[in-house]
Amino acid sequence: MTEPSLHPSAQKSRHTVSRQWILHQYPQRSHSISGAFKLIERPLHPSTPSTPQGTCIPANKILLRTLWFSNDPAQRTRINNASPDRLCTDLMREGDVMSATAIGEVIESSHPEYRKGDLVRGAFGWSEYVLVDTDSSRDWQLVKIPPKTNPADFMAMGGTALTAYFGLLSVGAATSADKTIVVSAAAAAIGSIVTQIAKNVVGIKRVVGIAGSEAQCEVIKERCGADIALNYKSPNFRREFEEATPEYVDIYFDVTGGEALELSLRRIARNGRVVACGAIFRYDSGGEEMAVSAKAWTNIIFMKARVEGFTVSEFKDRFPEAREQVFRWVRQGKIHPLKTVWRAKFEELPQGMVKLLKGEHVGKLVTEIITE
Amino acid sequence: MTEPSLHPSAQKSRHTVSRQWILHQYPQRSHSISGAFKLIERPLHPSTPSTPQGTCIPANKILLRTLWFSNDPAQRTRINNASPDRLCTDLMREGDVMSATAIGEVIESSHPEYRKGDLVRGAFGWSEYVLVDTDSSRDWQLVKIPPKTNPADFMAMGGTALTAYFGLLSVGAATSADKTIVVSAAAAAIGSIVTQIAKNVVGIKRVVGIAGSEAQCEVIKERCGADIALNYKSPNFRREFEEATPEYVDIYFDVTGGEALELSLRRIARNGRVVACGAIFRYDSGGEEMAVSAKAWTNIIFMKARVEGFTVSEFKDRFPEAREQVFRWVRQGKIHPLKTVWRAKFEELPQGMVKLLKGEHVGKLVTEIITE
Repeated sequence: MTEPSLHPSAQKSRHTVSRQWILHQYPQRSHSISGAFKLIERPLHPSTPSTPQGTCIPANKILLRTLWFSNDPAQRTRINNASPDRLCTDLMREGDVMSATAIGEVIESSHPEYRKGDLVRGAFGWSEYVLVDTDSSRDWQLVKIPPKTNPADFMAMGGTALTAYFGLLSVGAATSADKTIVVSAAAAAIGSIVTQIAKNVVGIKRVVGIAGSEAQCEVIKERCGADIALNYKSPNFRREFEEATPEYVDIYFDVTGGEALELSLRRIARNGRVVACGAIFRYDSGGEEMAVSAKAWTNIIFMKARVEGFTVSEFKDRFPEAREQVFRWVRQGKIHPLKTVWRAKFEELPQGMVKLLKGEHVGKLVTEIITE
Repeated sequence: MTEPSLHPSAQKSRHTVSRQWILHQYPQRSHSISGAFKLIERPLHPSTPSTPQGTCIPANKILLRTLWFSNDPAQRTRINNASPDRLCTDLMREGDVMSATAIGEVIESSHPEYRKGDLVRGAFGWSEYVLVDTDSSRDWQLVKIPPKTNPADFMAMGGTALTAYFGLLSVGAATSADKTIVVSAAAAAIGSIVTQIAKNVVGIKRVVGIAGSEAQCEVIKERCGADIALNYKSPNFRREFEEATPEYVDIYFDVTGGEALELSLRRIARNGRVVACGAIFRYDSGGEEMAVSAKAWTNIIFMKARVEGFTVSEFKDRFPEAREQVFRWVRQGKIHPLKTVWRAKFEELPQGMVKLLKGEHVGKLVTEIITE
């Protein structure tokens, strides 16, 4: 099948350069990430042979314009150079294009499987245009978005949903025998999926979600099905937490650290589990402050609890199976994607990270690029 | 076989009462345990029929005089009433005889398997004399000490050795592939056995023991075979810890909490394990102080580490197998018991707990009763 747009004569590209956000210098201290990045322009594909008609796309390549960007705590981790050998992923180098998962629209293609207008997800980074070699589609982690799928919804069911899936079911080993689960940042990307799977799939009796505003608490109860939602900024949070966990805490799903971690350990049940998946409160700090008190730690011992650190990449061989299961639950109406779409210009991209760390959004925070 | 001493005419007992240390009131704050106990005298066996010749021992009973007492951190735990439902064992009640493992000498017996002069280990508590019903020997956890065995050595290879065994091999899952293990309180009862099994049985390349004095450090290296011994009171402890763990920490065996825990987490290896077995530093405190910093906690996540709380009782079905293995290693010269024998009068017994918590001893701290 020959596509008109794939014909060599149609492949004159106006796009020979792309704007990119690169890591300029490792950020220091709280939320001071505005100076960490620099907007530059680079040749899109310096080795592409030029013709008088413009640049031709070589065989098996696709040119995309990125339109949606995923904002993830892991991005913040990768630019933290305090202890480069103590990261779960490789540290980025200064000068690298900032890493990010994005969805792009195919604007030119010399590969028969990709047509102009297709939406494709990949590890495109903060680049406005990307020229992708489909021979290395694994490196780019390319996935075509199914037709009629909202790109932001698709993003909400991406890596963060897989993190929820493996964290809850494999690391947390959740079953219906667990009476109580506490989920931190339960209105956010990972927590909203954990909450829904815990309640609607596993069937845990008491699902307690934690968030930082009344609006988020509303979402946790109304849209994620949690039995109880707690605002950690409440002056009575400690007492409310105790009242919400009369049978203690079988599983605590932690992406934040902070008071929720401390209280969950203080009330951990016998043989309880902590899925230690993130510490978003800490990424910007020096780290010398207290994470866990002696009282909380002693409970790990006495209650024979287990704390397990976890990053989703260790399950990558099982991603296809998990993705299939998650989308099945979506079709069955058991879980649904939650997202906040922030519309911005490409030159505003780093502000998405600031928003992410502030944590005022609901569900997955997706940056949608405004095209004039 | 009839033993002369078992003949009814020989069973006149002079022992109708026993001195006992009971829990008088739950201790508060640091080392203030002197007022927690009260020395009383109670009828040894009120239901024994009396004769003009004295008290006869009923059938299948043995009368013991306790001569060696084991001092264990778990004893301190059982009298901590701050959070009674948050203990790994039952909380003792005020008025109860203080629980303890002890070795007693049989002074009278109406059971053919126990003869006068036999040494028997059991859960005798802080009683000077005990009248044991052999029908409930499981409750008493009776074990006859083999002939020619030093009672203090036998005690050193008791519950604390089993804790070392299961903690290191089952919870810690130690293998020769682990490059580095750090052992806290490595000169003490549990740590000295962990250190020896890690080095002489498992064959871990770098065994780092931690203690609180130069004398203890000497013991860790010379008698337990550790490659490196560190004094946590050294002004350069942090730097010394780093230098001692160039390949990070695969396993940290924790019975203390404190700085050793913090540094072990800061230097935990990928997929490292923390065997959370005790927090002796904390038993006397309110527990509000820091156990783990944010920096250390974040490493649990990034390094995919596992922290597992553990008390040896969960392995009780496997005690016989473990005991056999441990004594086999002793006979093979791979490990040997370490102990400190404190000679004291029965009325000084509670001071053993103070000594234990001070931690200046080496190996198992055994109280040997001075008999005039």
